[in-house]
Amino acid sequence: MLSERQLPMAATAEPVTSPHAIDDPIERLRQLIAADLDAVNAMIAERMVSPVPLIPELASHLIAGGGKRIRPMLTLAAAAMCGYKGNAHVKLATAVEFIHTATLLHDDVVDQSDLRRGRKTANVIWGNPSSVLVGDFLFSRAFQLMVDAGSLQVLGVLANAAAVIAEGEVLQLQTARRVDTTQATYLQVIAAKTAALFAAAAEVGALIASRDAADAAALADYGRRLGVAFQLIDDLLDYTARERDLGKTIGDDFREGKVTLPVLIAVARGTPDDQIFWRRVIEQGQQGPEDLAFAMERMEELGAFTETLAFATAEGQAAKKALERFGDSPWRKALIDIVDFCVQRAY
Amino acid sequence: MLSERQLPMAATAEPVTSPHAIDDPIERLRQLIAADLDAVNAMIAERMVSPVPLIPELASHLIAGGGKRIRPMLTLAAAAMCGYKGNAHVKLATAVEFIHTATLLHDDVVDQSDLRRGRKTANVIWGNPSSVLVGDFLFSRAFQLMVDAGSLQVLGVLANAAAVIAEGEVLQLQTARRVDTTQATYLQVIAAKTAALFAAAAEVGALIASRDAADAAALADYGRRLGVAFQLIDDLLDYTARERDLGKTIGDDFREGKVTLPVLIAVARGTPDDQIFWRRVIEQGQQGPEDLAFAMERMEELGAFTETLAFATAEGQAAKKALERFGDSPWRKALIDIVDFCVQRAY
Repeated sequence: MLSERQLPMAATAEPVTSPHAIDDPIERLRQLIAADLDAVNAMIAERMVSPVPLIPELASHLIAGGGKRIRPMLTLAAAAMCGYKGNAHVKLATAVEFIHTATLLHDDVVDQSDLRRGRKTANVIWGNPSSVLVGDFLFSRAFQLMVDAGSLQVLGVLANAAAVIAEGEVLQLQTARRVDTTQATYLQVIAAKTAALFAAAAEVGALIASRDAADAAALADYGRRLGVAFQLIDDLLDYTARERDLGKTIGDDFREGKVTLPVLIAVARGTPDDQIFWRRVIEQGQQGPEDLAFAMERMEELGAFTETLAFATAEGQAAKKALERFGDSPWRKALIDIVDFCVQRAY
Repeated sequence: MLSERQLPMAATAEPVTSPHAIDDPIERLRQLIAADLDAVNAMIAERMVSPVPLIPELASHLIAGGGKRIRPMLTLAAAAMCGYKGNAHVKLATAVEFIHTATLLHDDVVDQSDLRRGRKTANVIWGNPSSVLVGDFLFSRAFQLMVDAGSLQVLGVLANAAAVIAEGEVLQLQTARRVDTTQATYLQVIAAKTAALFAAAAEVGALIASRDAADAAALADYGRRLGVAFQLIDDLLDYTARERDLGKTIGDDFREGKVTLPVLIAVARGTPDDQIFWRRVIEQGQQGPEDLAFAMERMEELGAFTETLAFATAEGQAAKKALERFGDSPWRKALIDIVDFCVQRAY
């Protein structure tokens, strides 16, 4: 059995003492864009309102439920770094958070999840129908906000991202329980389901500031690489985090038969006996009480955690490199720090 | 037990000999806008394409599966009536059909339906997760098409409609199985879940043709009234149609405990024994083999069908009246005929 000390995660090697400590880069970024972030939070509350009370009730459960607001912070910080003066960035950051929340609501229905961020999921409390429909509502609200923001170009970027996210989610469904999924297909899934929104969130910061196409592309590249790193760490944490930090149960992905990069690496590097094991536990879903521990041990022995972390770290480095064309500024520094946070995070 | 002859439906009094007969107003409208409608059908096929093959497979099952295309036809006919010259109407009509299809996919998940238009629903064939996600994809594609069409004003109208539809669906969930739902609340539900998209579909025809606000409002009013009439007839047909025409099972709404206007009228006009009956079959969902027949008999005796048809007819008249400000034209005539079709339809 694996002990926490053996895990390759930087976050467990250098434990985060408190998520609110000032050396937390998320907290530093929060302070840097505090006024804008307050405006986003106010707008989230304002735009969730509906004559149908269940809608804000259900939406606020998830939105107020401890999300890190990384995606809207990317929009705010990118806009500030690009010298944007105006109010559209707050609307777009709110739209980005609404799109994200809509996809979470639908994901939890799709995955039949019962815990998210340490709390019961909306589908458990209010049922799948309400989660599907309130997701649709938030999605529509996101587009209303984008219309208010007034840029067709930005609308195009976020509408494309939304379509790509849905494609990634469907592709993920089709790879479910398939240990013969290629690593390339898996990377295609996470580029679509996670990184596309990170990319769009950062890119629109450049677009509303009327920066040129190269600046917009650089921020999109930054967001995309950061998103891939973020998702790989998410997949890793499902096996290596402390439950208290994670806010959900360790091994959820395993129990749901999800093929993530650590699993695919362990499959690729494993013995014929390993192949039989993975097919039984993932493809056939036949899991005994010792199987999660054995899976984690094999992933550790075969370097699957180290390799996944290395991949995430490399993507993070590339994300930082994409920011080099922008002059030094507190916002650029914050966007760089956020990469380190996403790679090193314990939750 | 009710015989077909006793039903108050115009469609059964004056049977439609074939949906393809030239005296069918839908068919006449189709011929009038044939080139545009062909362009919409081509664009539907083109924009459903995705690197993920399941998406067009699932979407085309529903989109190609015998829909009447009433909503996109409203956009095309309204644009033509308003003198629009250009290509945006085809994109917007396609977007309207995609929004409609996305809501159908999600509705069938919400209602756990297994038949639509006489065919197995997508959720039965491919499962709820795929239906939710392909719905999200089509919704995103709709917004991409609107971006292509290039009008923020039109985007605003359709984004508002999408939000209102979701609100209506959530409100409907909350009235589920509640026979104490007021008729006003019920009308609010159908105004949102059905009529909002009819209204937006017609209104955008005026907007892209740069007609003034009064013309746009008149077409929105036309669409809204038509949508209410359409939904009321839909609710009525669930009890009074011939199954062969309906493409689904008679009494589905009853079995699902849906409160529609015929039920609410029968409840309001019923005896204390009726109240007990409705609470048992709808609220408690305890239904025996004779209950549907009894419910239909009571609705007939209490004038619930006649009253619902009268309400739909009045809304249809108001829809036609809203078109009076537009000069006589083949398109105005077609939009008027479509009202009669929607009120008199047997399927």
